[in-house]
Amino acid sequence: MTVMLPHTLNRSRDLVEPAMRAAVARLDPASRRVAEYHLGWVDADGRPAAAGGKAVRPALALLSARAAGGPAEVGVPGAVAVELVHNFSLLHDDLMDGDVQRRHRATVWAVWGASTAILVGDAMLALAYQVLADSPGGHAVAASSLLGTATQGLIAGQVEDLAFEQRSSVSVEECVEMAAGKTGALLGCSAAIGAVLAGAAQPAVGALRRYGEELGLAFQLVDDLLGIWGDQAATGKPVGSDLRARKKSLPVAYALESGSPAATELAGWLATPGPDSDDEVRRAAELVEIAGGRGWAKAEAVRRLDAASSALGDADLDPVARDELVALGRFVVSRES
Amino acid sequence: MTVMLPHTLNRSRDLVEPAMRAAVARLDPASRRVAEYHLGWVDADGRPAAAGGKAVRPALALLSARAAGGPAEVGVPGAVAVELVHNFSLLHDDLMDGDVQRRHRATVWAVWGASTAILVGDAMLALAYQVLADSPGGHAVAASSLLGTATQGLIAGQVEDLAFEQRSSVSVEECVEMAAGKTGALLGCSAAIGAVLAGAAQPAVGALRRYGEELGLAFQLVDDLLGIWGDQAATGKPVGSDLRARKKSLPVAYALESGSPAATELAGWLATPGPDSDDEVRRAAELVEIAGGRGWAKAEAVRRLDAASSALGDADLDPVARDELVALGRFVVSRES
Repeated sequence: MTVMLPHTLNRSRDLVEPAMRAAVARLDPASRRVAEYHLGWVDADGRPAAAGGKAVRPALALLSARAAGGPAEVGVPGAVAVELVHNFSLLHDDLMDGDVQRRHRATVWAVWGASTAILVGDAMLALAYQVLADSPGGHAVAASSLLGTATQGLIAGQVEDLAFEQRSSVSVEECVEMAAGKTGALLGCSAAIGAVLAGAAQPAVGALRRYGEELGLAFQLVDDLLGIWGDQAATGKPVGSDLRARKKSLPVAYALESGSPAATELAGWLATPGPDSDDEVRRAAELVEIAGGRGWAKAEAVRRLDAASSALGDADLDPVARDELVALGRFVVSRES
Repeated sequence: MTVMLPHTLNRSRDLVEPAMRAAVARLDPASRRVAEYHLGWVDADGRPAAAGGKAVRPALALLSARAAGGPAEVGVPGAVAVELVHNFSLLHDDLMDGDVQRRHRATVWAVWGASTAILVGDAMLALAYQVLADSPGGHAVAASSLLGTATQGLIAGQVEDLAFEQRSSVSVEECVEMAAGKTGALLGCSAAIGAVLAGAAQPAVGALRRYGEELGLAFQLVDDLLGIWGDQAATGKPVGSDLRARKKSLPVAYALESGSPAATELAGWLATPGPDSDDEVRRAAELVEIAGGRGWAKAEAVRRLDAASSALGDADLDPVARDELVALGRFVVSRES
């Protein structure tokens, strides 16, 4: 099922993309071209293309500026910075995870090699802080500090994710903590950085950040569901790819903790190395569902989304922007799984 | 020959190391331990060790604060930030270059794998900007901007360095430009960031930066000489390692441009893949010397050092700190080759 992109995302893209292009143009020519490919602006030969992501993080950054009573424009450097940090992490994660495809295209390391993926990721990370340093209005330091904390959370999440691969079992609690770092930290920063740049008071910034962090967990739950049951045409990844990779995603961790016969069978299958037939992968997905992992993850995504909306409830925020934040949250979780 | 570490380096270490340890303690526990190993504070099992580098960059940062009339302490966040960025680049470069040893110890990727080296490097890069964001005095944004520019220069230099590996010949001019990025950019930043944090005027900041950039080129020339003729006990690398790796270092580029019979023989040898006998490596080194590469690199290092000192000549700087900068420069180039 195709979900219409909310108006918010399109408006945000119109405002952010020129600033994003100007920022990327500051990179050395070789890194710039690779970054432009990664961002979906050109193909591997440098010809114009249009294959970008949904840019949820920039949209959150602009909404957060408006939620704090500022114009959306004030949030633009924050939007560019979080999108750069997000893409830095994708570049490095794709390499570490050995993923050869993203958004239906070959990943950077698959086209240009590991060193290029490392260096262009590094360049995008440093660029994020340059963009914030250049932001007007006197709140660059606070925004930079917020982004730094989020980046450390993001990295810590990936550290845990890789450590989990070496372990036979991971608790739901550990999985949630990992997702809070890997996905929640930067979404929390995205939802607050515009408010910081607009000079918002701490309670409003804190509320927006909690909203983003909860939204991040909802987002990750949906992503994990799509990693098992998602349609390849929509996700760009092979069906059941997370199961084939023996990934301890949230639905899997929940299923394994259930202690049911399905959990025992699932644990046995996960301990057996692939390659797997399509039937085996289908059976593993079925076991996660029988053990309650699918139902729990769907319900938990809704609970996290509610918690995100609730976080905004008491804060002193612009009501129109608040409503758009709530709507954007619903959109994020509405991706079919 | 052992050169006594100038008093400046020891004083700087006493001031910077506590701040450096406090910064690294902010990393997630797994990354912290790896960073502490990389910095020489612990061994691979986490036991205390003392194997750090010379920490020239932090010393420059403190001197630059004093050169601008401030106390050395004002430069400490800058010193920590440049040392973090330097070590981020070492972590990633060792991986990209496939180097298994640094400072007589196994490199991080050789002990913990590629992903850990990538992630801990990323964490140290982001941490550098956090340290600057936390610096008091109202000059954090300018310092962050300076560091961002230097980081991009550093990355662009490594991009060029890797591109050169794919090429049969590289001009001296191209080599110098690469070294200006890879080594000059961060030394230029190191020599200016303390002054920026001390609120120095642009002419003084510019002069200090030029001093650091020229010093960086002198440093690289000496490093390249050591990479060919250095004593393994001093460098921690096998004798002639740069030649074995067919690295287009500055003395090699100069030798190849000479057009002499030795250059022709050298070019032929470089185009022949290894493994090489010790005799072959000795002969290649001899050819670089016969073609003038060794003599030129030594003389050029002295010229760059003079240019560094000259850059400080006209600027409005504290005379004692200026003299120490000149002395530190001499020390850097005095490593025996």
